[in-house]
Amino acid sequence: MGPRWKGKGADAKALADPMSEIVSQLQSSLLQSNALGSLSGCSVLLAVETEQTELLTRACFGKPIITAEKDKQWFQLGLEEAFYLCNSLKCLKIVGEDNFVKNDLDLWLHMKSKKDNFPDFYKAYSHLRMKNWVLRPGLQYGVDFVAYRHHPSLVHSEYAVIVLSEGDVGRLRVWADFHCTIRLCGSVAKTLLVLHVDKNGHGAICPSCLESYSVEECTIMRWSPEHSRNDQTASENGIT
Amino acid sequence: MGPRWKGKGADAKALADPMSEIVSQLQSSLLQSNALGSLSGCSVLLAVETEQTELLTRACFGKPIITAEKDKQWFQLGLEEAFYLCNSLKCLKIVGEDNFVKNDLDLWLHMKSKKDNFPDFYKAYSHLRMKNWVLRPGLQYGVDFVAYRHHPSLVHSEYAVIVLSEGDVGRLRVWADFHCTIRLCGSVAKTLLVLHVDKNGHGAICPSCLESYSVEECTIMRWSPEHSRNDQTASENGIT
Repeated sequence: MGPRWKGKGADAKALADPMSEIVSQLQSSLLQSNALGSLSGCSVLLAVETEQTELLTRACFGKPIITAEKDKQWFQLGLEEAFYLCNSLKCLKIVGEDNFVKNDLDLWLHMKSKKDNFPDFYKAYSHLRMKNWVLRPGLQYGVDFVAYRHHPSLVHSEYAVIVLSEGDVGRLRVWADFHCTIRLCGSVAKTLLVLHVDKNGHGAICPSCLESYSVEECTIMRWSPEHSRNDQTASENGIT
Repeated sequence: MGPRWKGKGADAKALADPMSEIVSQLQSSLLQSNALGSLSGCSVLLAVETEQTELLTRACFGKPIITAEKDKQWFQLGLEEAFYLCNSLKCLKIVGEDNFVKNDLDLWLHMKSKKDNFPDFYKAYSHLRMKNWVLRPGLQYGVDFVAYRHHPSLVHSEYAVIVLSEGDVGRLRVWADFHCTIRLCGSVAKTLLVLHVDKNGHGAICPSCLESYSVEECTIMRWSPEHSRNDQTASENGIT
């Protein structure tokens, strides 16, 4: 299953406008403007002007929030998105309720307090983002993320991503879970991508632990004895 | 990963000589000669003449045994192979130690007594064999079977097959098992194919239970964020 581009010329558009470049522009712009987000429960709110609105949209970070304000556009960033801009791209500062900028450690502890498996999810998120995959929440497909080759306006998401941690016993525990998930992914033309995050004994005390984590990726796909023989004659395929 | 043919023209040879046809010829020949195998521990011994020696070899059933007899060639069939010729192709009778022909039920009970998971293994074996996949033991790769698109003299095995039963807790239990198996398969250029046999509540009292079993197949492959983007530029792939 290759990428499903949205309409003719979408692949050429994507090729001419690499995601790495867009994210790079966003990074410079946020850095220049000393962008400041603020914690708000399980998300981070960020107010930006027109240029950055466009860059955030093109780079596919957060979702715009409609407000009455005319000169500012508010974006709601997910925990992983916000931490990626802060910790990996270092182009965003985030303030807490006390209006003081949180350092990396405080932010990490806050994220963890809001989401138990944040360290694993963030490792998975940043692992793919750094390789220019665009990630969006996968909730509507019952998975953790969906991954796009480029902006969702140009291409459908190719992968339904599930993040598994060491000792994770809640999901994909029995084969029925696998088949259920694979079938669901198949019905929406996505490939199931499992990212298994191994902390390698490094816990999650501070963000620098992330460097010691490793990620193993595998795809799981339905297989059919007939379809895998389409190089042969119909009778050889058992189709009679 | 497509089929890896052994040398030039091997794929054309395979196409011109479909496995379904070869098995069909073997079936007729064994039927005509009232072929009779005999149980011998965890295998079935079968003595055949030249024509059938060639057909068994081409259809890839059993392995020849070297004996001093000049006019007969002995073949040692695995439990699944023997039962497939008996029960599915109905071209082989098998006698026990008492020299009486065993009926399907007795044979089934014997096979089960020799191999606990015989019902699941046989379902998996026959499921693929019926679709013209050639199966050989996978012991040397730490899996249950290896599957070939055609005769092993023409093509390398494509799949390393693992058979999982309901409630199977011994194998592929944790992700480390998966990664270990996937890496091993990758190093010998095979794709891991997991066949999950579901008895659908039908037990394994007699061979007719097999008809109620279902098989779910999936392939599991390593995935790399870079290699999956080879349609893009090197920098977009994160390769710098």
